[in-house]
Amino acid sequence: MKLEILLEGGIINISSVVKATYSTIALLYDKDKKIILEPGDYVTHAFLENKLKELGLKVEEITDVVLTHFHLDHAYNSMFFPEATVHIHENYLKKSYEKFGMIVGKQYLAVMNSWKKARTFKDGDILFDKIKVYHTPWHAKEHCSFVVETENMGKVFFAGDIVMTRVEFYDIMRMLRNDDCARFVREMVDNCDYLVLTHDGVVDLKNWR
Amino acid sequence: MKLEILLEGGIINISSVVKATYSTIALLYDKDKKIILEPGDYVTHAFLENKLKELGLKVEEITDVVLTHFHLDHAYNSMFFPEATVHIHENYLKKSYEKFGMIVGKQYLAVMNSWKKARTFKDGDILFDKIKVYHTPWHAKEHCSFVVETENMGKVFFAGDIVMTRVEFYDIMRMLRNDDCARFVREMVDNCDYLVLTHDGVVDLKNWR
Amino acid sequence: MKLEILLEGGIINISSVVKATYSTIALLYDKDKKIILEPGDYVTHAFLENKLKELGLKVEEITDVVLTHFHLDHAYNSMFFPEATVHIHENYLKKSYEKFGMIVGKQYLAVMNSWKKARTFKDGDILFDKIKVYHTPWHAKEHCSFVVETENMGKVFFAGDIVMTRVEFYDIMRMLRNDDCARFVREMVDNCDYLVLTHDGVVDLKNWR
Amino acid sequence: MKLEILLEGGIINISSVVKATYSTIALLYDKDKKIILEPGDYVTHAFLENKLKELGLKVEEITDVVLTHFHLDHAYNSMFFPEATVHIHENYLKKSYEKFGMIVGKQYLAVMNSWKKARTFKDGDILFDKIKVYHTPWHAKEHCSFVVETENMGKVFFAGDIVMTRVEFYDIMRMLRNDDCARFVREMVDNCDYLVLTHDGVVDLKNWR
Repeated sequence: MKLEILLEGGIINISSVVKATYSTIALLYDKDKKIILEPGDYVTHAFLENKLKELGLKVEEITDVVLTHFHLDHAYNSMFFPEATVHIHENYLKKSYEKFGMIVGKQYLAVMNSWKKARTFKDGDILFDKIKVYHTPWHAKEHCSFVVETENMGKVFFAGDIVMTRVEFYDIMRMLRNDDCARFVREMVDNCDYLVLTHDGVVDLKNWR
Repeated sequence: MKLEILLEGGIINISSVVKATYSTIALLYDKDKKIILEPGDYVTHAFLENKLKELGLKVEEITDVVLTHFHLDHAYNSMFFPEATVHIHENYLKKSYEKFGMIVGKQYLAVMNSWKKARTFKDGDILFDKIKVYHTPWHAKEHCSFVVETENMGKVFFAGDIVMTRVEFYDIMRMLRNDDCARFVREMVDNCDYLVLTHDGVVDLKNWR
Repeated sequence: MKLEILLEGGIINISSVVKATYSTIALLYDKDKKIILEPGDYVTHAFLENKLKELGLKVEEITDVVLTHFHLDHAYNSMFFPEATVHIHENYLKKSYEKFGMIVGKQYLAVMNSWKKARTFKDGDILFDKIKVYHTPWHAKEHCSFVVETENMGKVFFAGDIVMTRVEFYDIMRMLRNDDCARFVREMVDNCDYLVLTHDGVVDLKNWR
Repeated sequence: MKLEILLEGGIINISSVVKATYSTIALLYDKDKKIILEPGDYVTHAFLENKLKELGLKVEEITDVVLTHFHLDHAYNSMFFPEATVHIHENYLKKSYEKFGMIVGKQYLAVMNSWKKARTFKDGDILFDKIKVYHTPWHAKEHCSFVVETENMGKVFFAGDIVMTRVEFYDIMRMLRNDDCARFVREMVDNCDYLVLTHDGVVDLKNWR
């Protein structure tokens, strides 16, 4: 399968006013499957629409959506793919989203209820014969990272929100952190070709191994 | 009725990447009525939730939502008030929202379909005995401006998106524009105490009359 | 001369907190001349640096900087081109920048004082045999628009801040405004191939003539 | 001395386009001393100006500027206080700012050269009899955190960029990280009344001890 980064994620967080942080959106595809690896947030939905139009893809043609975890900035746009099966770690079922509040909680439920089919995975699973799942619960209890085998970019590490930005990545590689999470990231870096940051661009790992 | 500005609007527009522009949110209230004058966009929904909690208000207690026009950055959060009647100019019914696209169009329909009751108004109407409606179709064909009689702030001019920011307001007041829209704004300024900008703060008009 | 858009401008304006609006940055070049058409604001200075590095250009090689007007979001980065002559409308000399305040005013003076050479132009001038100047004082008294003859994009209209975004452009083309400024823009659109928006992307005008 | 938060910091980081992240700005003052604890970045300089005007303070009255580390989003506005002594960890002298590039490096030098007086501190120092210095080099080699004794807010922990946001703080308190940095933060939390986040709001620590 080939990988295309449709939009690089970013962070906009203004204390007490605006939260418009949005995740990187990637498409993994071959003849049969069109998989969105994290569909991203509301603030990018118009750009996602343009991007799909440029690629000649209809929303109904997306067969699957894969999530690192269930936060709105990664999962909101899953609502727009009516035929997709949503893949997520089983722990997302253990959280009670109502307690997030009358508005935020309702938003989470609306996203979840929009999913026609949801399929859970767990640590060690391999999805579509290409996506290896690692349970990395340091950001949310259902959080997973992925290593994806691609035709055009080699082995690609989707760390998820355990490494959001270039700055966080540099801190880990300069050995400023020595927790389990940092050790896991360094180990993956040694075995992959690219790192897709969830709220920043793509890092070529050949300079880091 | 008293007026409280819950959140001042802003603009975040990054070409080809992010659109996170959001409108000012105001509450107009007395014992019986709790009216949200423009509920604003998704990127402020968590802050709206906090604000209502601080005021001891439940979403079910909001009786009405009034919109200057039907763009998502003003109307998105109307979804979260299950008991509210939504008030909007009749022209919103003349637009076909599907043509906005598979994703954006679907978003518009979801907002519209969430409205339990919608009531249309037209130029010259007076809502709740306090909100005078002016049809000002220079930004969208259903666009209206309001002059609101309040107990605590006198006559308040909600121009809507025909004057989004302080910079646009200054341009109009310095006579750099002389179209119908600019003339309308200058006339209202002469008769009101405050101007609530949709994507900026509140302007005290006593310095401008 | 050829034109390259180095970065598309955007708007980030959070009432009472952050102003991070930044202009589009363009490079106009041939063998002898490397002209920056609006160098943009502080928030893009690191990206401008990367872009120049990609193009193999040193800051000392930039021969000229041309400004539509003297606001920081367009002019700040002019500080970083030590060999460039800055071109701007003569009216910029009639403003007293100190009155902008102890901090903002000082910032304006620092930018202005960094200019090794400044050359003023006026309505009707033609710069470098390619850039026709139109004095368009509807946003600032020194504000000018440009029509640039290019090898690769035909006639390109740099409106400046009299048309910042696609939304403002559509409002003008849908005849919602009929002031002098709107009429000027419509006239230029009829005679040009592309419009470079200062705080948005590039518009192909062939669909608008 | 009393503490006032002049502006809460935030994060705006759009991959390959805009970086407008800005730090929290605080004022620590008594009759004799007016100390800015991190003056913040360019994008907030106009708001800092307004805030000082509201407080009736001139830029010349600021006696001191204290920095957690030397990154522009924390230090840029130090340029605007001509009488202030700048206090920073001695390691800032060990970095070569030119290597940051022709533009970014020049910006760093301009800030540094604007300082009339700079005084270095080191781990364990106590500034103004009120600010205890902790060397916390997990974000930059000169990075320090502070515990400040205040009249109006008790003991206030300025962590600096080792804890930028509420999300990062929660991750540390939920024991998701167990590195030296996380342990240091948890220890300080046990002994302080408030935590000032550099890119977010203020946390009341009584709920966390």
